[in-house]
Amino acid sequence: MIIREKEPANLEMPFAQLEGAITPVAQFYVRSHFPVPQIDTRAWQLKIEGAVGRPIDLSLDELRLMPPKTIQATIECAGNSRLFLLPKVKGVQWELGAVGNAEWTGVPLRTVLEKAGCATWACEVILEGADHGTIAEPPRPAGEVLFARSLPLEKAMDDVLLAYEMNGAPLTPSHGYPLRAVVPGWYGMASIKWLGRIIVTAEPFLGYYQSVDYASWEQRDGGPVLVQLREMQVKAQIAQPSMHEIIPPGETCRVHGAAWSSGAEITKVELSTDGGESWQLTTLTGESVANAWRLWEFTWKTPAALGPRTLLARATDSAGRIQPETRDANRGSYMINHCLPIEVEVR
Amino acid sequence: MIIREKEPANLEMPFAQLEGAITPVAQFYVRSHFPVPQIDTRAWQLKIEGAVGRPIDLSLDELRLMPPKTIQATIECAGNSRLFLLPKVKGVQWELGAVGNAEWTGVPLRTVLEKAGCATWACEVILEGADHGTIAEPPRPAGEVLFARSLPLEKAMDDVLLAYEMNGAPLTPSHGYPLRAVVPGWYGMASIKWLGRIIVTAEPFLGYYQSVDYASWEQRDGGPVLVQLREMQVKAQIAQPSMHEIIPPGETCRVHGAAWSSGAEITKVELSTDGGESWQLTTLTGESVANAWRLWEFTWKTPAALGPRTLLARATDSAGRIQPETRDANRGSYMINHCLPIEVEVR
Repeated sequence: MIIREKEPANLEMPFAQLEGAITPVAQFYVRSHFPVPQIDTRAWQLKIEGAVGRPIDLSLDELRLMPPKTIQATIECAGNSRLFLLPKVKGVQWELGAVGNAEWTGVPLRTVLEKAGCATWACEVILEGADHGTIAEPPRPAGEVLFARSLPLEKAMDDVLLAYEMNGAPLTPSHGYPLRAVVPGWYGMASIKWLGRIIVTAEPFLGYYQSVDYASWEQRDGGPVLVQLREMQVKAQIAQPSMHEIIPPGETCRVHGAAWSSGAEITKVELSTDGGESWQLTTLTGESVANAWRLWEFTWKTPAALGPRTLLARATDSAGRIQPETRDANRGSYMINHCLPIEVEVR
Repeated sequence: MIIREKEPANLEMPFAQLEGAITPVAQFYVRSHFPVPQIDTRAWQLKIEGAVGRPIDLSLDELRLMPPKTIQATIECAGNSRLFLLPKVKGVQWELGAVGNAEWTGVPLRTVLEKAGCATWACEVILEGADHGTIAEPPRPAGEVLFARSLPLEKAMDDVLLAYEMNGAPLTPSHGYPLRAVVPGWYGMASIKWLGRIIVTAEPFLGYYQSVDYASWEQRDGGPVLVQLREMQVKAQIAQPSMHEIIPPGETCRVHGAAWSSGAEITKVELSTDGGESWQLTTLTGESVANAWRLWEFTWKTPAALGPRTLLARATDSAGRIQPETRDANRGSYMINHCLPIEVEVR
């Protein structure tokens, strides 16, 4: 793993190591805002409270006795590929590997919300992690905060999972043991780790991690407005060749990677080996799985001419969304899904 | 005037110069985010558009022909007294003089909104100034923005004035000529200068100047949430003596200042001359005028004992709100209304 930050741990998968559709736990990127919280699993309970008919506490054993569900979900950090932005922006300098695809087992959030009974006037569900600390840069709330973020009630009742297993094994501490949320289709900051409390609320929750942080700007009549980050944007990434790789001339080179979107299937991935002048269709491999990335590959007949080459991949999804070729600066330091140039050298 | 920033001009009234209830234009603080915009008054029109029955444009002459209204309103910059904060926070380092009270003449915002006819689904009114520029610090929108901010429709239809005169004379360029909003009871950032466009909207407008900037934090279940700055907080300020003044022992010293609140009358101002150990009632002078500050004074029999003394003033309003003695750090760099220590020396 590439260490992007030592404490708290922010670890990136070297994306060139992409192999199967499922990312092994040991290779799955770790994004931490604060140190891994100390949790006594025997005393631990998930609290469901707020605008509910009956507040409830659930132990890990009680959750494990409820009907389990297993889903695949690709989770990408909202700041993945930040390293490509010029001028440089603040934040963890991820290259390509702050994304992974795993199998998650747990209980649908809907099940526990139905157990507690949401008030008819409820509009959002706040997921609160146990990880906590102080925020350095103003504008910021004073003192210690817990990492927390809300979902619209509709999404909470749809496909969000409270997961206690990742790839068939209990969550590891850095992935949120004993319990985390998995919010399919959304950027990773929504999938709260070390989940401790679920608060149903009748008021939109404008917490730090969905206002000053994890937000972007959208143009409206009257000027740009702050918009909370939610759905992952359609994106293909090249795993191999990797940045600055030396490619032999006049041979065949396997170009491959992964592509994902939100709420739609990947319908094609195109590849350019000439910096965007021309595009060729790649082959999608494996099966299409909802909320999971799709692997793709291409056999490139490398040119005889020596010199630098820029490779670009471009995904299209079944909703007709196409990965943009240029960056929208209003997205600040997040949602980096424009076609990313991989510079190689034919030599 | 104290120059806090030269370009754009940010000018503070030396608050010790406080005399009558009305602040002369030449002494009224100037808060600029961008340079004074160049406006050709003959071509200038106020646009009212968005979720309205009939978009309209009004020239300055047309506005002047509408039934005028004159109100007094105290306007305080949301960052007034920032100089008192420790540790130091970012922003213009105002001491006491980023506040003033003037007579404003113009047309009620309600009148022009009724002329255009707000849609029944409208919820907010965006006021857009002509001042513009780029914002330096992330998170920020890309490119140029106009200074703009929204009001709930209820407030817009209540007492907001579109003012073309200040203290009986046309607005000066630095105070928003040809037209500005005056939002009684709210901090100054709401009283948009160089007003050019009014947009009625069906969606809450979360612009830069009411999200990343001009916001504070409030504790809720689930953690602190971002809250837009609105109403001025109850506050008394000491004009004289001023900071570090030398006071003769065993004499009488006139202590005086101003006090204001939002949506309520000032009912008392107390003074402490011993750093908050004991408090004495001051005399409110003049008349109580809605949305305007109230002057107060006190005759202090200065002690025979030489040495430093800390003076504090504390206001209470008719809604029962009392100026706090300590600072709430969740307010960040705004809403600084705790009792401000004025350190003097008896010598």
